[in-house]
This record gives sequence, structure tokens and C-alpha cells, in this order.
Amino acid sequence: MIAAEACLRGLAARGVRICFANPGTTELAFVEALDRVPEIRPVLGVHEGVCSGAADGYGRMTHEPALVLLHHGPGLSNAGANLHNARKARTPMVVVVGDNTDEHNEREPPLASNLVRLGQALCDTFWVAESAVGLANVGPAAVEQANRVPACVVGVGAPGPMQWMETEAPGPGRPSVTPRPVSATAILRIGEELARTPHAALLLGGPVLTAEGLRAAGRIAAATGARLFCETFPARVERGNELPYLERFPYFPEAALEALAGVELLVCVGTPVPVAFFDYPETDGRLVPPGLRVHTLGEDYQDVHSALQEMANRVPSGRGASTWEAPRVASTPRPDPAGPLTPESLGAAVAAVQPQGLIVVDESATSGRPYWTLSGDCPPHTLLALTGGAIGQGIPCATGAALACPDRPVLSLQADGSALYHLQALWTQAREHLNVTTLLCNNRSYRILQVELRRAGVTAPGPAARALTSLADPAISWADLARGFGVPSVRLERAEDLARELQRSFSTPGPYLIEAMIG
Amino acid sequence: MIAAEACLRGLAARGVRICFANPGTTELAFVEALDRVPEIRPVLGVHEGVCSGAADGYGRMTHEPALVLLHHGPGLSNAGANLHNARKARTPMVVVVGDNTDEHNEREPPLASNLVRLGQALCDTFWVAESAVGLANVGPAAVEQANRVPACVVGVGAPGPMQWMETEAPGPGRPSVTPRPVSATAILRIGEELARTPHAALLLGGPVLTAEGLRAAGRIAAATGARLFCETFPARVERGNELPYLERFPYFPEAALEALAGVELLVCVGTPVPVAFFDYPETDGRLVPPGLRVHTLGEDYQDVHSALQEMANRVPSGRGASTWEAPRVASTPRPDPAGPLTPESLGAAVAAVQPQGLIVVDESATSGRPYWTLSGDCPPHTLLALTGGAIGQGIPCATGAALACPDRPVLSLQADGSALYHLQALWTQAREHLNVTTLLCNNRSYRILQVELRRAGVTAPGPAARALTSLADPAISWADLARGFGVPSVRLERAEDLARELQRSFSTPGPYLIEAMIG
Repeated sequence: MIAAEACLRGLAARGVRICFANPGTTELAFVEALDRVPEIRPVLGVHEGVCSGAADGYGRMTHEPALVLLHHGPGLSNAGANLHNARKARTPMVVVVGDNTDEHNEREPPLASNLVRLGQALCDTFWVAESAVGLANVGPAAVEQANRVPACVVGVGAPGPMQWMETEAPGPGRPSVTPRPVSATAILRIGEELARTPHAALLLGGPVLTAEGLRAAGRIAAATGARLFCETFPARVERGNELPYLERFPYFPEAALEALAGVELLVCVGTPVPVAFFDYPETDGRLVPPGLRVHTLGEDYQDVHSALQEMANRVPSGRGASTWEAPRVASTPRPDPAGPLTPESLGAAVAAVQPQGLIVVDESATSGRPYWTLSGDCPPHTLLALTGGAIGQGIPCATGAALACPDRPVLSLQADGSALYHLQALWTQAREHLNVTTLLCNNRSYRILQVELRRAGVTAPGPAARALTSLADPAISWADLARGFGVPSVRLERAEDLARELQRSFSTPGPYLIEAMIG
Repeated sequence: MIAAEACLRGLAARGVRICFANPGTTELAFVEALDRVPEIRPVLGVHEGVCSGAADGYGRMTHEPALVLLHHGPGLSNAGANLHNARKARTPMVVVVGDNTDEHNEREPPLASNLVRLGQALCDTFWVAESAVGLANVGPAAVEQANRVPACVVGVGAPGPMQWMETEAPGPGRPSVTPRPVSATAILRIGEELARTPHAALLLGGPVLTAEGLRAAGRIAAATGARLFCETFPARVERGNELPYLERFPYFPEAALEALAGVELLVCVGTPVPVAFFDYPETDGRLVPPGLRVHTLGEDYQDVHSALQEMANRVPSGRGASTWEAPRVASTPRPDPAGPLTPESLGAAVAAVQPQGLIVVDESATSGRPYWTLSGDCPPHTLLALTGGAIGQGIPCATGAALACPDRPVLSLQADGSALYHLQALWTQAREHLNVTTLLCNNRSYRILQVELRRAGVTAPGPAARALTSLADPAISWADLARGFGVPSVRLERAEDLARELQRSFSTPGPYLIEAMIG
């Protein structure tokens, strides 16, 4: 068999089931070989950012790496923003990039690029296949590496002619590794400190945001009175009325410091000590008030999920438990979804109708801010957030999540500014008949930048600053854009209409886009 | 003034007149300062690939660098494919990328990335401002470096807090440098060899494809009988009935070798010895038949344009002139544009109606192949090609070219597969009211990949290979997509309708998209 086929067989043998591809001439051996490896489903993305974002969504939902197939350095570069988000989400992924041979690159053909340097910048690990046998056998090693703890993005450069060479079937690869345990002493020590500290809090993130992890956290909170926070942008969190409610750790530094006011001990589990998104002058970078004691339960290469459960089993009931009232914001009565669309009425409309098992891919920025609080007591659902701040992740991620979970409806909660980066993923949703509802929150601006300008003291921006933060001129019609990609769409302006359209879309197969005009 | 303003003033003082921006929070100092530097026009692109592609088009038409303003590593990565094309086009450009301070990046906030490694991979030169004074003074140095011979892409990392610091106005920067001359002996020697070789050819590219350069080449051809070729993908070439006709050097290796069959001497001017786009098995990588003598007139850092004129002034009339008949393919009678749209009738329709001064941005791939030959005797016009093979360049490049030349109509000759990468540039065309006509050649496939699969011997591709090279399911409506971005559009299927719509669009202000359904 040719080396490309051997590589695919090795990947398939280790659990790879899907290939998000935007191939070119150099990858045609893989394209051709996919027809002989039926375990791997080929899915075309018409921009590389669609492929990497979809692989991220797929990996978050399955915990298995997708294969991404790209064309040369420019293809990898196009995929880069969503690789960044995937790396921050600790999503396993294998990216194969076709290249020229070194010999041909030295002649400087048009597509020659410094693929190795680029791969090192954009992937966690980047290998170049040095021979056909090497390419044939790289699959199991790449999956192994991608599935390490924490999971990561593995890139493989695959020179074109090598892909076509005849080789043997791939070898078996290395055995799996299991993550190292967190030390029992540390678990006990931190648990005891939580129990004896009246005002303590847990900040949960990464691998512990499963239903099991949240229940363990809930038991710790019940025993110790600790508050429970969720990291601001979780890769994946289980939520809803069968699980403890987590407060979302605030984005802006002043709000974050206020949220921690009065807290004496913060224990970070599955997430590092919180830092500001940007170099805001209000903080020294870390979002913890001076004097707050901070512990981290385990390292990212350790089995933090088991450690949290172990702590829940062993934590003594704390002295502080009776004196601390953890706020249950989710129990605030939810307003009826009615009237003109605002971030609040939009969030209420979604929360009012969302079905059990919904996957919410949240790239809603300012428009979706109230949704978290309003949806805490909804039926069980899963939320995937923008982990790396590289906007343009939502529509592709929703596409991948829907392919991973064909029996669950997906809501792509999407800001208009962010949606403009990789809107082409709508076409893949149409081609694959995915049950994704895109709720496009159209406020005709980069609202967050307008907010940040004000925060920076620019209260009267001039025409340049206004133009660079506005999407109003000309107005973008998302309903037309969706139709152009084969996705039916509707535009609406009222919360009651939104609730009705959402309900209809969740229960109807295939993609749909709702353009919500926010006042 | 703040350092961002000082940086902008330094750029403006050295001729920068436009800023293609997709800013985020980290670049708000530049956004705010643009209102105090009116020499620099801010233009918003809603994807970074729009910004880098537009800066490429602008730079090709003005020979001045545009400023590109981007957000962190992911923003630079998104711009990467069109930076690649710009580098291959030798387009001057200055790219400013906002970043965190190193200190904050060490805390690993969400947007932290290895910006320096990425910048080194994606720019010709990448600097990081080390202080506010450094940022304030980087403008003139960056323009200087971008304008060197050959021109290049200069990236500057600008930590956010540094941009807001108070500094002095920028210093004067270094004086301009002029390119080194090609040695007079080499010019004379190659000219004499051309004159005494019966079957010789010039392959012209890069800086010599000006009207002046082509007239010099024409005089050499008249004196020596040499054939004139144009490199396959010129950054910018002047064409039309007042200039010598250049044969386009073929893309596929077999056609390239056939074009050079019988040629005894090839002189490359402004372009390297031609190499195959990919590692095709048919060649050893270089697209010259064995035994062909090849010379290159000068290096890319030398003044090749003057050297060609010097050669034209001094070349002796050759012995071979009378025995060689340079083909004048352009004088083939052009068919009337009529009937169903094919690549031929489409090319004929464009050539029949194109006005003097048209700028043609050609990313038409297979659909536009016949156009070159059919348009050789059209009124004077300029053509910009896809230099680096990173598709997704055409719509942004046309946008930048139109901003550079507001008095000239622009034709964006665009393949549907390529158009899907950075279609968001249509919005910028609408916002800036640019007279760009996009002729979207919709053949509902990655036709070139289907051709390449056949060339690789895959005569009966399976379902996976068919799916990964087809855009037919679902059909994409480009007319709808254009409307969504505020660009009026029409869909048509016949050459006579195309000719009529083109004429109307060229003479009407503002953008227009014609979706040409190719059979």
C-alpha cells in the first residue's frame, strides 16, 4: 500500500474516525487513500480554519483526536487561530500538512515556506516524516502524543512524493500511558485547609468540569462551605439542574477582584491561577487580590479529576460551612422571553426552551454574557467556550461537535464580529446535514472593543476609532450569507419570536441560522 | 504623544498612506491614535487575510508599503497565507502586531503565543519593539526595510502597554538606499550571446514587467529574434495592444517543457530559473529541458530593470533574427462572446469589453486559463496574479488595488474554490464604495484538484476523493453571499449576458459581483 494509506490505517487503528480536510495537490495521495480506509470519514472544510475549529469541537466532545489534512505552510497558517484555541482547550488533534520535499523547496517554488518553524509555532509538537516508512508508522505515535495528559495538537509534515511510495502496513505503535496521580498528601492537606478556612473558594477548570467532577466539587462545597467558580472560558463544562451551579469567573479584572473580595483561600483545580486576558493597568496580571492564599491541586500532567474525587471522599466537614452562603445566582427567577432583543431577553429565550442534552458552543461575547446566569437550572447540557481568545472558533467548533454527537442538538451562540472569521463552516453544516442552530447575535459592532475603548478612557472616539469598531456600514445580512451557503435562515427582532424559532430548529434536522437583531 | 501615535507619524512621514486593520483590545492605542494622523486612512477588514491581501494589492499598485494592524499571534497567523503571497510578489508591507508584554505572556493568558517564532516564519523580517521610544522610532526603519530591493514584508511586535506610553515624536530614520547595478560586462556578454543564438528566449518577471521594461524586451526581441515569455504568476504585469505580447510560461511541467522545445538559450530577467509548482514526477524540479543553456540577468537585489534597458540599447542585431518566428498568439481572431459560459467564452467576453486602464486581479485558476491569450491585444491594462499559490488572495488583493487606484476600474477574476477563503473582503469593497467587479467563475468544484487526480493516474476516484474535490453539494449561491456583504450581484449563464453586465459594472461606481455559471 502507499504510505498515505498506511498512515491513515495507523491512525484508524488508534481510534481516529474523522478527517477534516482542505487538501491541495500535495495531499492527493491522502485524498485517494481515504477511499480505502472507510473507518475515517472525510469532511471537507472550504477554509483551513473551519477544519481546525471543527476538529477542536469534535475532540472536546469525544476525547479522541480528529485528523486534519492541510496544504503547505499557508494552509497551516490559515488553520492557526483555531489551533491556538484547541491548544488552550487541551484538545487532542493530529494535523497532517503536505509539503514539498526539502530538495524541491530549495528551488523555491511558489508554495515553499518555512513549514517547520511555522509548525513549531502553531502546534504543541511538530514532526516531519523523513521517509515513507516513517510516514507509514507515524499514525500511532501521533495519536499517542496527542492523547497524552494534557492532550495536545500534534503536527506532521508529509512531503508529497513520499505519500505515494509503496510501504508495509503500519506497526502497532507504543502502548498507552496513564496520567500520574496527584500526591495523596497534597490532596489531604488542601482538603483540610479548605475545611478550616471560613471563606474559601474552588476555581474549577479543564478536566474536572465533567458531571462527576462537578458532583465531587459540590460535595466539597457542602462539607466546607467553599464557593464554586468555573474558569471564564472552559473548553467543556457540563451544566444544568442536576449539577451544582458554578459561578462564572468574571472576564474584566475589576469584576474578578470583586468576585474574590472576602475570599481567604482559593484552590485552583484543573486550571491555573487566573490571569487577566490582557495587560490591564488595573492589575499586576494575576486576578487575585493581594494577600489571598492560593493553592493549585496538581499539575496539568497529573490526574486532577481523580484527585478532586479523592478530596471529596476525604474532606472533613469544615468549621466555616455554616457561616458561608454560596450565592445561587441561577435560582434568580428568569424573566419571560418577551419584547425587543437585548442580551438579557436573548439569554432568557434560549434558557426557556433549551432541550436536555443540548450542546452550546458559546462565542457570543458581549451579547451572551447574561446567558450563563440564566441557564444554570436548565435541563442538563454541555457548554464549550472560546478558550484561546482567537475569535472565529464558534461556527467551526459547533460543526465538529455536531459530527461528534449526531444525536444531540447543537446551539452555536455566536457574535456577529466573531462569526465573520470562519463563516464558511456553515457550508459544511449544510453538506453534512448537521442539526446545528446558529443564533447569530447581530449588534453590528465589535461591541467589546467599544467597551474597551471607554475603559481605556477614550470617551469620545473619533471617526477612525468609530469606523474600526463598527460593522454597521454597510449592514451585513446574515440571513443572506447563510442562504448563500445552503443554510436556511430567518431574521427576527423579538424574544418571543426567538424562543419559537429556537424550539422549531432544535426539533428539526439540519442546520438553521437565526439572525437576532439586538437593540 | 503616545508611542502608537509617534509610530504612525513616523510611518506617515515615510509615505505610508493607508492602514488595513483588524484590531483587538491590544491595538486600541493605534486605533485611537489614527484619529490624530489623518495622512493614514484606516480601512477595516473583518478577517486578517483581508488585510494582508489588500495590503499586497495596494503595494503592487503603488510600490509603497501599506500598514497592516493585527491582534496577537492568531491574528498574524490568519494573515499568513496572504503574507506568503505578498512575499513572493516582493510587495513592500509593514505589519504591526499587538502583543502582551513578555512578563504577562509568561503568566500564560489565553492569547499568549510564540509571536516571535510565528513572525519569523511569516514575515521576511520580524522585530519586537523593546521600549516606547523604540516603538515610536520603528516606523521609518520599517519602511526603509520594506522598500529595500527586493521589497519585503516587515513585521513589528508591539506590546500593548508600550503603545500607550508618552514619548517624543519619531526621529528621521535612515536615508534611502538605491539598488546595486548589474555589472555592465554581464549585460554585454548575455546580450551578445542572445544575438548569436538562433533560438533564444527571454523569461521576464518581477520588476521588469513594466511598460518600459516590456518595450526594452521588445527591442531585444526585434534585434535578436528571441521569444518573450512572462513568468507564470507575475506580481504585476502591464499588458495590451501598445506593448509586446508575452507568452505566459505554462503551469504544468509537460506544457512548460514543450514551450521550451527547440530553445537553445533561456535568459531569465527579474525571475529565477523556472521550477515546477510541486514535486511532479515528470521533472527534476526545474522546468527547463536537459541541455538548455540558462543565464540569469542580475540578482534580485540588483537593478534588473535598468539592466534590461541597457541591454536593449546595446544588443547587436542577431544572426538568428530572420530565422525565428516568435508566435503572436494574441493576434488569433477572438471569438464573439456568445453562447453558454465556458472558460473560452468567458475569457472572450472579458477581452471584448474591457476598458483601457483596467486592473485585472487574476485568481481564476482553471476557468481563467484562456483569458491571457485572448486579451493580448486589448487596450492597455494591468494584471496581478496569485504569486505564492496560497489561494484566497484575489478578492482582498482587488480591494487593495482599488484603494490604490481610485480612478481605475478593477476586475477581480475569481475562481469559486479560491474565493471561499477570504470572501469577507467583499464587505470592505462595499464599505469603501470601490469600483471592483468580481467575476466569480462558478464551476462548483476544485477543478484543478480533479485535473491533478487524473494526472496522478486516479481515473476513477471513489466517493471520498469525489467529495473532497467537489463544491456542488450543496450549491453555493455567490449572488446571495455578495448581497449578504452589501455588494449587489447577478447570476448568469451566457457569454453575451456577461459582456453586457461587465460593461455596465465597469462604468458604474461601487462594487458588483457577477456569478458566472460555467458549464
